[in-house]
Amino acid sequence: MSIPHYFPSLGQLTKRFGTPFYLYDFTNIQQQYLKIKGAFAGRKSLIAYALKANSNLSVVQQIASLGGGADCVSLGEIKRAILAGVKPYHIIFSGVGKRKDEILEALHLNILFINVESEDELLLVEKIASSIRTEARISLRVNPNINPKTHPYISTGLNENKFGIPVQEAKRLYLYAHKSPHLKPVGIHFHIGSQLLDLEPLQEATQKISSLFHSLNAIGLELKFFDVGGGLGINYTDEKPIEPYDYAQMILKELRGTEATIICEPGRFIVGNSGYLITSVLYEKINDSKRFVIVDTAMNDLIRPTLYDAIHQIALFDSEKIIDTEILEHSHCTLADVVGPICESGDFLAKNIKLPPLKHNNLLIIKNAGAYGFTMASHYNTRPNPPEIAFNDQKKVWVIRSKERLESLWENELAYLKDKQ
Amino acid sequence: MSIPHYFPSLGQLTKRFGTPFYLYDFTNIQQQYLKIKGAFAGRKSLIAYALKANSNLSVVQQIASLGGGADCVSLGEIKRAILAGVKPYHIIFSGVGKRKDEILEALHLNILFINVESEDELLLVEKIASSIRTEARISLRVNPNINPKTHPYISTGLNENKFGIPVQEAKRLYLYAHKSPHLKPVGIHFHIGSQLLDLEPLQEATQKISSLFHSLNAIGLELKFFDVGGGLGINYTDEKPIEPYDYAQMILKELRGTEATIICEPGRFIVGNSGYLITSVLYEKINDSKRFVIVDTAMNDLIRPTLYDAIHQIALFDSEKIIDTEILEHSHCTLADVVGPICESGDFLAKNIKLPPLKHNNLLIIKNAGAYGFTMASHYNTRPNPPEIAFNDQKKVWVIRSKERLESLWENELAYLKDKQ
Ligand SMILES: Cc1ncc(COP(=O)(O)O)c(C=O)c1O
Ligand SMILES: Cc1ncc(COP(=O)(O)O)c(C=O)c1O
Repeated sequence: MSIPHYFPSLGQLTKRFGTPFYLYDFTNIQQQYLKIKGAFAGRKSLIAYALKANSNLSVVQQIASLGGGADCVSLGEIKRAILAGVKPYHIIFSGVGKRKDEILEALHLNILFINVESEDELLLVEKIASSIRTEARISLRVNPNINPKTHPYISTGLNENKFGIPVQEAKRLYLYAHKSPHLKPVGIHFHIGSQLLDLEPLQEATQKISSLFHSLNAIGLELKFFDVGGGLGINYTDEKPIEPYDYAQMILKELRGTEATIICEPGRFIVGNSGYLITSVLYEKINDSKRFVIVDTAMNDLIRPTLYDAIHQIALFDSEKIIDTEILEHSHCTLADVVGPICESGDFLAKNIKLPPLKHNNLLIIKNAGAYGFTMASHYNTRPNPPEIAFNDQKKVWVIRSKERLESLWENELAYLKDKQ
Repeated sequence: MSIPHYFPSLGQLTKRFGTPFYLYDFTNIQQQYLKIKGAFAGRKSLIAYALKANSNLSVVQQIASLGGGADCVSLGEIKRAILAGVKPYHIIFSGVGKRKDEILEALHLNILFINVESEDELLLVEKIASSIRTEARISLRVNPNINPKTHPYISTGLNENKFGIPVQEAKRLYLYAHKSPHLKPVGIHFHIGSQLLDLEPLQEATQKISSLFHSLNAIGLELKFFDVGGGLGINYTDEKPIEPYDYAQMILKELRGTEATIICEPGRFIVGNSGYLITSVLYEKINDSKRFVIVDTAMNDLIRPTLYDAIHQIALFDSEKIIDTEILEHSHCTLADVVGPICESGDFLAKNIKLPPLKHNNLLIIKNAGAYGFTMASHYNTRPNPPEIAFNDQKKVWVIRSKERLESLWENELAYLKDKQ
């Protein structure tokens, strides 16, 4: 992804907000949403954005304003979705570990349905629904058990992981739910992994689940929603993402002859390439001929490199000019690790990338940081969370989350100090 | 570590606070502090507790009340130390990436010294000190470049990582600082890694650094403080930690003939075995004969298993009785993964451990979670941070951090929603 021509002037922004900060391209968020929505044109569909990727209220509001729904995995995410204007009947509640109070609240809020992940959970949902004399709309997350040998990178669609319910058991539970006065099965769901770049395992999964869907249909258990989960990959360095059109056609083909509404739960696809993390150079340092560029952001702001060995390309912002990675490759550069101030060897943003000589306060643009960036941020080393800023192709720039006050980090502790009691 | 006899009744605690929550043994914190302090008896020493391991204000206050100092790596940690009652002249400021405003504030607060990690930083400290017409007390973090072949697990004491300054360069910088009217070198510092279980690499490092220390002494550059860093390992499963006595004797031997005050920066050693993470069972689930126990804590509360493949033993709390891991081994159990509600395959607390059949609301005690537990917590999946509770051998139990309100997670975002503007 090259940086868009309407990218804001970082000089002004850093004067106002300091560094580090997250910066999101709301035009790109809209375009990505419309791309995936458009792919399902001609069919009833709901794009239920997976909040876990980026749950900033303004990001969710942007998607809601386009008609998008929300895939939520906690009561916190459900509340965020509602605050941001997502209609309750566009909200799905997923996740392997829903608490009682979360299920109760989801039923009270009358969301679209609960994606149930185990028999234990199904029975609990039934019990809670019965206790408030309602019928809970549910879907089962079915685990298609995609062959790990042919698809070793598919991590959540195998039986030997915690997600979903094996096909045979799902069938039994659907029949159970169908008979229960407090459960109403309305959908079927699967999700086999994230950052998927190959259509084949998705097709294999869609076939398995649609065959269950058809067989349930045949015995009179009609499900309105076919939820294909999220997982569409994006381009970080030189990946070739799946085309939304091909993806949609594959699914539509499997569902031919049915009226099912398709639900899709993209997270990364919508926000991943829409986000940037802006950071300043603090120091340059050479240890034993190894070069380090020390910056003011760290693994507490963006843990993906540390946790997943994820690669985020880095561009340079110098005298109001953006020097993108491709150009850097050709200029006078040496290899460097870009590292943060945290006292862990694992605290790095990039390893062995080409960078020109840098000075204190030079700005770096860490790309493709819109998904699983801020949402995974921590306060490690008592570092406050960075602010979040939005921009669009109308050259508008606005705050969507203010910088955290340092004092708020110990707000919940101060009253308990001994002399304060 | 077996659970102490004065461990509080979890039944009452969970009624009051729900789950999950962190629980800290303040008696053990005190004992661990006194153990390491006592090892250096007969010599001037400062135990500068490394806040990064656990920065809760009451934990730091407990250590400060015993005379302990603080090793801080950010302005946030310095402020925590001061709030908790650590004397400014017992505070050290370490870390590879100090910001200008942090250095300025540290000088204003007149802390003991700044541990400088690069030439760039030394020049910046000098410039800032000059601008406020003061003399900055500094120490250099020297990288002893311990042989990675003989000690492959030593991760921060090698030249090819971001930490510290190579010995030859350090010598040059000491001489530079010695001549500067705005820099006052008062100490020498090294730190080679965390969770160290072998005295040998520590000895090798101490020898290298003390030899530099002696040679600086010889040319009239007298340093008052010899800072040996932290890193002392603890017992998680069946590790044999270094005895503080042996550790101290080794250092004292290297420093024979000098008057240096020893500074030691333990983090994990003081708090690691003093902390527990208490969680409830939500569901049991078997996928393809693989058993999962789903609990209400997750990688956002304790990321060590996910990030470092760290092993935390788990005990059971059943009908007011604690069933510790060793006993579990012998009872009627099957292998299970203990996993959290977060939608990532990496979200687990323990893998393949023996557990008896469990029910909704059974309590699990995740042990040795006092260090790098809460400080690395995030809000991933919009999950609020758990509360922190303290107890001691006087059977006193008290809150040291209240549970985070869900609403506070989007407090900094709400005002920026479109209809709110
Ligand atoms: C059930 C479910 N839906 C959707 C998503 C979103 O995935 P992605 O961001 O890869 O689209 C996830 C990610 O973990 C998920 O578990
Ligand atoms: C400079 C320094 N001192 C002390 C510590 C504390 O280490 P530990 O908790 O292993 O004692 C660290 C840990 O990273 C460190 O980097």
